[in-house]
Amino acid sequence: MRNRKAKHDKSAVKPVDAAVDSRRGFLKQGAALVTGAAAAGLAQRAAAQNLAGQPWERVYGATFTGYGQPSRFEQPIIRHIIRPYGDLAPGSGVALAPIERLEGIITPSSLHNVRNHSGTPEIDPKQHQLLLHGLVARPLTFSMEALLGYPMTTRTYFIECSGNSSRALSPQPSQVPAGAMHGNIACSEWTGIPLRMLLEEAGLQAGAKWLLAEGGDSAHMSRSIPVEKALDDAMIALYQNGERLRPEQGYPVRLLLPGWEGNMNVKWLRRLKATEGPTHTKDETSKYTDLLPDGRALQFTFEMGVKSVITKPSSTMKLPRTGFYEISGIGWSGAGRIRRVEVSTDGGATWADAVLTGEERPKCLVRFRLPWEWTGKEALLQSRAIDEKGQVQPARKAWQAQYSPALVYHNNSIVTWAVGTDGSVKNVYA
Amino acid sequence: MRNRKAKHDKSAVKPVDAAVDSRRGFLKQGAALVTGAAAAGLAQRAAAQNLAGQPWERVYGATFTGYGQPSRFEQPIIRHIIRPYGDLAPGSGVALAPIERLEGIITPSSLHNVRNHSGTPEIDPKQHQLLLHGLVARPLTFSMEALLGYPMTTRTYFIECSGNSSRALSPQPSQVPAGAMHGNIACSEWTGIPLRMLLEEAGLQAGAKWLLAEGGDSAHMSRSIPVEKALDDAMIALYQNGERLRPEQGYPVRLLLPGWEGNMNVKWLRRLKATEGPTHTKDETSKYTDLLPDGRALQFTFEMGVKSVITKPSSTMKLPRTGFYEISGIGWSGAGRIRRVEVSTDGGATWADAVLTGEERPKCLVRFRLPWEWTGKEALLQSRAIDEKGQVQPARKAWQAQYSPALVYHNNSIVTWAVGTDGSVKNVYA
Repeated sequence: MRNRKAKHDKSAVKPVDAAVDSRRGFLKQGAALVTGAAAAGLAQRAAAQNLAGQPWERVYGATFTGYGQPSRFEQPIIRHIIRPYGDLAPGSGVALAPIERLEGIITPSSLHNVRNHSGTPEIDPKQHQLLLHGLVARPLTFSMEALLGYPMTTRTYFIECSGNSSRALSPQPSQVPAGAMHGNIACSEWTGIPLRMLLEEAGLQAGAKWLLAEGGDSAHMSRSIPVEKALDDAMIALYQNGERLRPEQGYPVRLLLPGWEGNMNVKWLRRLKATEGPTHTKDETSKYTDLLPDGRALQFTFEMGVKSVITKPSSTMKLPRTGFYEISGIGWSGAGRIRRVEVSTDGGATWADAVLTGEERPKCLVRFRLPWEWTGKEALLQSRAIDEKGQVQPARKAWQAQYSPALVYHNNSIVTWAVGTDGSVKNVYA
Repeated sequence: MRNRKAKHDKSAVKPVDAAVDSRRGFLKQGAALVTGAAAAGLAQRAAAQNLAGQPWERVYGATFTGYGQPSRFEQPIIRHIIRPYGDLAPGSGVALAPIERLEGIITPSSLHNVRNHSGTPEIDPKQHQLLLHGLVARPLTFSMEALLGYPMTTRTYFIECSGNSSRALSPQPSQVPAGAMHGNIACSEWTGIPLRMLLEEAGLQAGAKWLLAEGGDSAHMSRSIPVEKALDDAMIALYQNGERLRPEQGYPVRLLLPGWEGNMNVKWLRRLKATEGPTHTKDETSKYTDLLPDGRALQFTFEMGVKSVITKPSSTMKLPRTGFYEISGIGWSGAGRIRRVEVSTDGGATWADAVLTGEERPKCLVRFRLPWEWTGKEALLQSRAIDEKGQVQPARKAWQAQYSPALVYHNNSIVTWAVGTDGSVKNVYA
């Protein structure tokens, strides 16, 4: 926790060589390459004006589809599925977003990360209800039809499982794609009802300081939520990226607590109960607590820390040639907006500011990008995010020093990819 | 064109009654309704704390999927397909976004509007190339692998077919869903290469004032583009909403000309040729010109006008009860940002400002919302968008007066939905 709140020491930031910071550099190199023998991978001088048609230009194309799908040439781009209990509990585990194959900020709903404790229930929206009860003046039930009639808001938020990047805590670095380690994160445009509106309708009593949120899956996933968050930016989400929620994202209704631990964004929401104190459910006692070196456990560490990861190039990829590359990745913070993301290609000795997209939106992914010339030498690629509260993404060792080695939650430490002289990109601990 | 550029007369704007402008009003009404007999459609008083489990809470849920799909309870939500030549040319026509079923700003890629002249080609990205030639110092070919190695940017833009809303020009108003008339519009987060970068690499000659853009479909859809636009915000788009372009959106590469006629955003892009003047292709002479009352035709009316449409409630829907509703819809302008959207419930006699989401982004959809109390009387719902250039969405008659009755392009006139005393919502011309 200390490092997550550490202030950013500007004196430690040094400029990297000019080429790294220059889009013009990339462009000039691209133009030079296309006239030379090393052109592989960039534009080629057009030998003749080759206008010979391809086979698909000579046949009439396919008709329309009601609901489109990706090209068959992009198969399979799918989530990384990890089921720790195998066929004994095939719906328990995670499906991580293939962040190494994605671009921009919005995650396609089909590839959104999933953390399920008891599988995805198949819920009939005509039968499902949301109950709002406990310390309220008027206990209420909401049919889905009723909820769809309320005023709505639209906001873009990330959701990160608090167990994201736990695989990066293994004794030896795993050589798997970035998404299979760090892909328990996604970002969507959510549309729904401000939770505050429903709480006002029910009439919270003065003693109501917490809410119990309970899911309609067979695990009845349940978490306790301070009422301040519920009255702040919490949303009863009904739509995701323009269409109704996907089943594995909580269809027909989920709770959204922007910036907080993924599992608190309770899916298949069936019940909110206003209470005096936290309920101490199984999901916040046996799980989702942060074990400290002295054996005590931190409970209710809701907010996800400031974090980033380079997605291109990343683990298991191979650079096909020397020359210029764009380093690209995602950054986020549960505390609000990302102010900057710095990139190092020398294991943290020097840093350069990346260009950001999406930094105007709080609790939303940013895309960061920085041109880089790979000269064929070994390189250690790192990114470091800083948020509007001044919190800096911690180094791996500083993060580890705060917790028990058994902890698998809230790992927001800096990720390092090592580029070898053969262009191979590996996951390393640095 | 006159009305599209007309300045907004503020004196014509009057406030509607207070209830329309009050979210608190909605909330109070909702709270009142739940204790009364007219509760249908909103929250109900919880008779008992009904925690009896539903069937899906008693069975273990489904396992993970690599690439998710919508709930079966949301089937079918699909595009409105119109094939004017039927089975003679099954890939020619349009597939319109079901905007009446969508929320927020982002259109799911599976439901993005499609206008195809010769079907969707099935393109192997390993074989497809982009040729950049004509009045350039260095003619270049780009493999898809090369393009994927260039620096990228991410922006959210709408694409509207210039034939959108042509169905709303029929002699009698069609009683079809809003999307089947006005759904030739969608909005995505696009990631790609600034076209300026590739043009600089090729070296535009001084005489190059236009570009010919040609698609790789069997129609070789082709348009002429002023070089100023190409050097401004044009993009060589490779990703849509985080994943690679969908086939019907131009996989593996399309041109993006933000705010301009949909068909100019050439899909399956195979060629850009720098030229002195426009090429006058079949697609910009026999089609996509604007016929005037005197028989002359305007050519190269690239920019899409300022426009909006109410999606909820809309044509073919039925209001199930009197009481409060949220009027919701989308607005956009090819000239830049939307500054405001006004809503009328009395056929344009009085207007109220709607709340906007997304208005900070140019050439992007906004979502507008306004609470409304339906008292059971007839109502005429309209929306009117105003952009940052001061252009005001024109009334239907004012728009029609500018053009020949045969024109089917650039209809950005105000849409009217009539609510009957029985709650039915109909498309009317007003």
